[in-house]
Amino acid sequence: MSPKITTELLKQLRQVMKNPKYVQEPVQAYIVPSGDAHQSEYIAPCDCRRAFISGFDGSAGTAIVTEQHAAMWTDGRYFLQAAHQMDNNWTLMKMGLKDTPTQEDWLVSVLPEGSKVGVDPFIIPADQWKRMSKALRSAGHDLVPVKENLIDAIWTDCPQRPCKPLIMLDLSYTGVSWRDKIVALRSKMAERKVMWFVVTALDEVAWLFNLRGSDVEYNPVFFAYAVIGMNTIRLFIDGDRMMDPAVRQHLQLDSTQEPEFKIQVVPYGSILPELQAVAASLSPKEKVWLSDKASYALTEAIPKAYRYLTPYTPICIAKAVKNASETEGMRRAHIKDAVALCELFNWLEKEVPKGTVTEIIAADKAEEFRSQQKDFVELSFATISSTGPNGAIIHYKPVPETNRTLSENEIYLLDSGAQYKDGTTDVTRTMHFGTPSAYEKECFTYVLKGHIAVSAAIFPNGTKGHLLDSFARSALWDCGLDYLHGTGHGVGSFLNVHEGPCGISYKTFADEPLEAGMVVSDEPGYYEDGSFGIRIENVVLVIPAETKYNFKNRGSLTFEPLTLVPIQTKMIDVNLLTQKECNWVNDYHQKCREVVGAELERQGRHEALRWLIRETEPLVQVQ
Amino acid sequence: MSPKITTELLKQLRQVMKNPKYVQEPVQAYIVPSGDAHQSEYIAPCDCRRAFISGFDGSAGTAIVTEQHAAMWTDGRYFLQAAHQMDNNWTLMKMGLKDTPTQEDWLVSVLPEGSKVGVDPFIIPADQWKRMSKALRSAGHDLVPVKENLIDAIWTDCPQRPCKPLIMLDLSYTGVSWRDKIVALRSKMAERKVMWFVVTALDEVAWLFNLRGSDVEYNPVFFAYAVIGMNTIRLFIDGDRMMDPAVRQHLQLDSTQEPEFKIQVVPYGSILPELQAVAASLSPKEKVWLSDKASYALTEAIPKAYRYLTPYTPICIAKAVKNASETEGMRRAHIKDAVALCELFNWLEKEVPKGTVTEIIAADKAEEFRSQQKDFVELSFATISSTGPNGAIIHYKPVPETNRTLSENEIYLLDSGAQYKDGTTDVTRTMHFGTPSAYEKECFTYVLKGHIAVSAAIFPNGTKGHLLDSFARSALWDCGLDYLHGTGHGVGSFLNVHEGPCGISYKTFADEPLEAGMVVSDEPGYYEDGSFGIRIENVVLVIPAETKYNFKNRGSLTFEPLTLVPIQTKMIDVNLLTQKECNWVNDYHQKCREVVGAELERQGRHEALRWLIRETEPLVQVQ
Repeated sequence: MSPKITTELLKQLRQVMKNPKYVQEPVQAYIVPSGDAHQSEYIAPCDCRRAFISGFDGSAGTAIVTEQHAAMWTDGRYFLQAAHQMDNNWTLMKMGLKDTPTQEDWLVSVLPEGSKVGVDPFIIPADQWKRMSKALRSAGHDLVPVKENLIDAIWTDCPQRPCKPLIMLDLSYTGVSWRDKIVALRSKMAERKVMWFVVTALDEVAWLFNLRGSDVEYNPVFFAYAVIGMNTIRLFIDGDRMMDPAVRQHLQLDSTQEPEFKIQVVPYGSILPELQAVAASLSPKEKVWLSDKASYALTEAIPKAYRYLTPYTPICIAKAVKNASETEGMRRAHIKDAVALCELFNWLEKEVPKGTVTEIIAADKAEEFRSQQKDFVELSFATISSTGPNGAIIHYKPVPETNRTLSENEIYLLDSGAQYKDGTTDVTRTMHFGTPSAYEKECFTYVLKGHIAVSAAIFPNGTKGHLLDSFARSALWDCGLDYLHGTGHGVGSFLNVHEGPCGISYKTFADEPLEAGMVVSDEPGYYEDGSFGIRIENVVLVIPAETKYNFKNRGSLTFEPLTLVPIQTKMIDVNLLTQKECNWVNDYHQKCREVVGAELERQGRHEALRWLIRETEPLVQVQ
Repeated sequence: MSPKITTELLKQLRQVMKNPKYVQEPVQAYIVPSGDAHQSEYIAPCDCRRAFISGFDGSAGTAIVTEQHAAMWTDGRYFLQAAHQMDNNWTLMKMGLKDTPTQEDWLVSVLPEGSKVGVDPFIIPADQWKRMSKALRSAGHDLVPVKENLIDAIWTDCPQRPCKPLIMLDLSYTGVSWRDKIVALRSKMAERKVMWFVVTALDEVAWLFNLRGSDVEYNPVFFAYAVIGMNTIRLFIDGDRMMDPAVRQHLQLDSTQEPEFKIQVVPYGSILPELQAVAASLSPKEKVWLSDKASYALTEAIPKAYRYLTPYTPICIAKAVKNASETEGMRRAHIKDAVALCELFNWLEKEVPKGTVTEIIAADKAEEFRSQQKDFVELSFATISSTGPNGAIIHYKPVPETNRTLSENEIYLLDSGAQYKDGTTDVTRTMHFGTPSAYEKECFTYVLKGHIAVSAAIFPNGTKGHLLDSFARSALWDCGLDYLHGTGHGVGSFLNVHEGPCGISYKTFADEPLEAGMVVSDEPGYYEDGSFGIRIENVVLVIPAETKYNFKNRGSLTFEPLTLVPIQTKMIDVNLLTQKECNWVNDYHQKCREVVGAELERQGRHEALRWLIRETEPLVQVQ
């Protein structure tokens, strides 16, 4: 990797920072955050402004450019990568290290008195704006919204905002029509005495209208906003997408119907003036509901007294609870995904000893097998295919410079998943194609014990996921081990592989309680820098649990694994398992054999079926 | 219980609310919070203003009186008690129920436009002031500080503020001199570039100066504030307490010494003007450190730009980590406490069958045995002595109206503790003096499994206590059971039985990480309304743990039980225990037998010793 040369770009940026064509008053600093206008985790190429100006393309980072300086804040995952990708114009600010100043403190230390700090109000979330604005103001500076994005102003070959065709999902996939979703949303609005709801997250727009897109890689979403009133529906979306007769029919754009379900299609770029018009029409006590993560621009469009902000929107919460059709779809998707992985692991077992399979080849092969499955759309994230020491890099993605060959002497970790029209998958398996050492087996078994502790946990209705996080760590902790990431995240249904509002993490204290129908991952791990990485991940569905008693009539919950891929028994030290844990593994493998076996049989994949049967032989405990 | 008649009192209060002698402008509402000026959990009789005006004397509640209304907010523990103790002048606001308005919403709904709401600025914590003031202002009202307390103005027979003699603790108890504590505090102040530190919590003043008092029941504290500068020490305290030559010597009031360790004694009531004088003398960038729970009056005395507020003060954190002398003291105190409880349970076993022992008699007997022990000072909280259905009332305290006779047919729950000069105890044991049912044993055993899961947990340095809470519930959850309170609280060293900043609870997300030397309780339970209550509580010390590996060199921690009182094996269903849990019980009982047995022997308490030996027979698992 050679760094991007940014001298000329920075010069141009500093010019537009003073150019009255772009700024009302010159700004002495300009902030370039990571995200897009929807606070998406994955962004489209046209939104990779921070990567364009700096060269650093990791998933998290904020650039700030002043007349004299250019600085980049990122976290420990990206210190190395950022240092490699950026040239000498840039100072790397290592977040999490004691001596690293915050963005605010740094700005205060370098800016001349009474400076203006500019930022695109569409890109910065309202809560971040508030914090930074306050800090700057107390030091005599001003945070100012710069309407035109200054990176776009100098980005002459900026890619177009994608505008790909839409995918319509019928009732057999979604279980609920968009009309009924609007009815449910309006009833939540009525409960809170709110007149308007602004949908800003891309996956929330997609879910609400039972549409999908491919504007952003891995996430089947499309660029749009929606504003839902008690009697009106406005969808902000660009391009010819609304010309497609199938889309018109799906949204009933041309049929006569009750006015409150008539969708007005409005250009994507009109969201701000339209929202301002809504704001101007409000009577006292009429409120507008927004996520507190919405952009500063949209939040500011609503006068403070009319705003109703919540961390999670009713759409976010409804979307998290999968209905029967979605659950069935997720089950089907996971069976197909398991078929692909049985094929892959069977193939790897034969090919790895030849010494010709690299991490990239293995990842491509996984995609190839998945793409053979019905309703396959794309991968759900960049495949983590890592062997030996690369496995210890938690967010590793193989590139030619790091690409390692799989061997019989190293642990192989594969974290991968796909988007199928009926569901989203995300699975990690850790395999050894030779003979694992006693230590590797020991660590793997602790991780497995943690995985089982979460998967088999029974807990009361109303429990938040973060209360389960320690269960995943207990066996590791007993031996002085641990892993430095959360245990699980919400998973969408043919939607984003990471979604709120639930999760299992020691860090997540704003998570919503788990309820039956929610889908999360269960993925404890153990990583030894320079040696190996272990992770065992299933996607699991929250289901009601039968218990002997029922305290206060609250009811209990537990998890059903949706992922049905064998866990390599060769890596398990059976003597470290309790009888209960041993039974869990055997029951799980029995289910894999039955359910995935039947599908392999149906697809005529006999060799992979033999592999599955071999890999699901019951564990036997030696007493 | 008959309600207090408050008609006349409310009339008087409403008069002073308009009387220019007391208020600059009339106030249309007056708030009477629960606490004292130090935000203490336990308060002195002179601070029981809310109980005086309403009759309701539970530990939590806020009264608000307007010209037309009088309303009391309290939580589920006190709905019944408050309803019994208050007359018809009062409306009970049941907190936690869906339809109960918040204090702010209620005020807004009943007040005429542009009202003033008064409160004693010394009693309301700054963070509460801020929240309420904001809500009222946005509805067109004003929260105003009323300097003179309006309850005190009408409370003609208000008890005097206690001013009892002080107890000096020498180095053998405290391990660190007050001088060294000041040095350590100043070094923390220097780290944060803070010039002044204001000590507002009573236990923090007591700890800092190695003094104890008895101004408040159960908590060995005395009314005082302190203001520590980099070169000055001011102690705000009343009465002749500084006349005592021993106190003078302890504080070195009469010896020549370096000026920075010279304590200036200032009247308790001068804290506000003195703090205002400090504020007036500040140069720019000089900060004053206060707890964010300090009163509004003291917080406001420091202009905003000079305030440095933290949720936990450095004294709170230093106090929580017990040094070797304090740890040894805590161990001694717990051994003496165990001697007293062995005597008590031996006595109960003989007396209960006679049908003459009531909950109150048992509680008194427990106090009698404790008071025979060396350095006994007082109880550390009101004894919870409860049998049968009373055991299910988590904060029960026996009074003549509820006093039940112990029998061989009901479970008995005793939660009690004492202050000794060398340490504070808090222990709960649940006993059956006849034959427990299989169901009672089953529930007891789940609670025991939870107790052991926490006590034996191994976890990395830096772990916060709330991450351990689910361990205590897992066995109960498996069967659909749970308990509706936290699992543990910090415990002081001859100080408050409840102290921050650590704890073990699903509710505590602001807790500080556990470190070696901290002391917390481990007290899971199970309660069946109308039938019985079960709780098993030990006080445990955080200690380093030896582990096989040591991830990232972080080190691990675990707990050592300080409480050494047998857990009734009759209540245990051994078949529900794992081998590891069974070993834990046997090891624990072996330690009780050795350590407490030796002390019983030394004190010549042979009958109690025989009881101890009988009660610590090892469990045998039938395979």
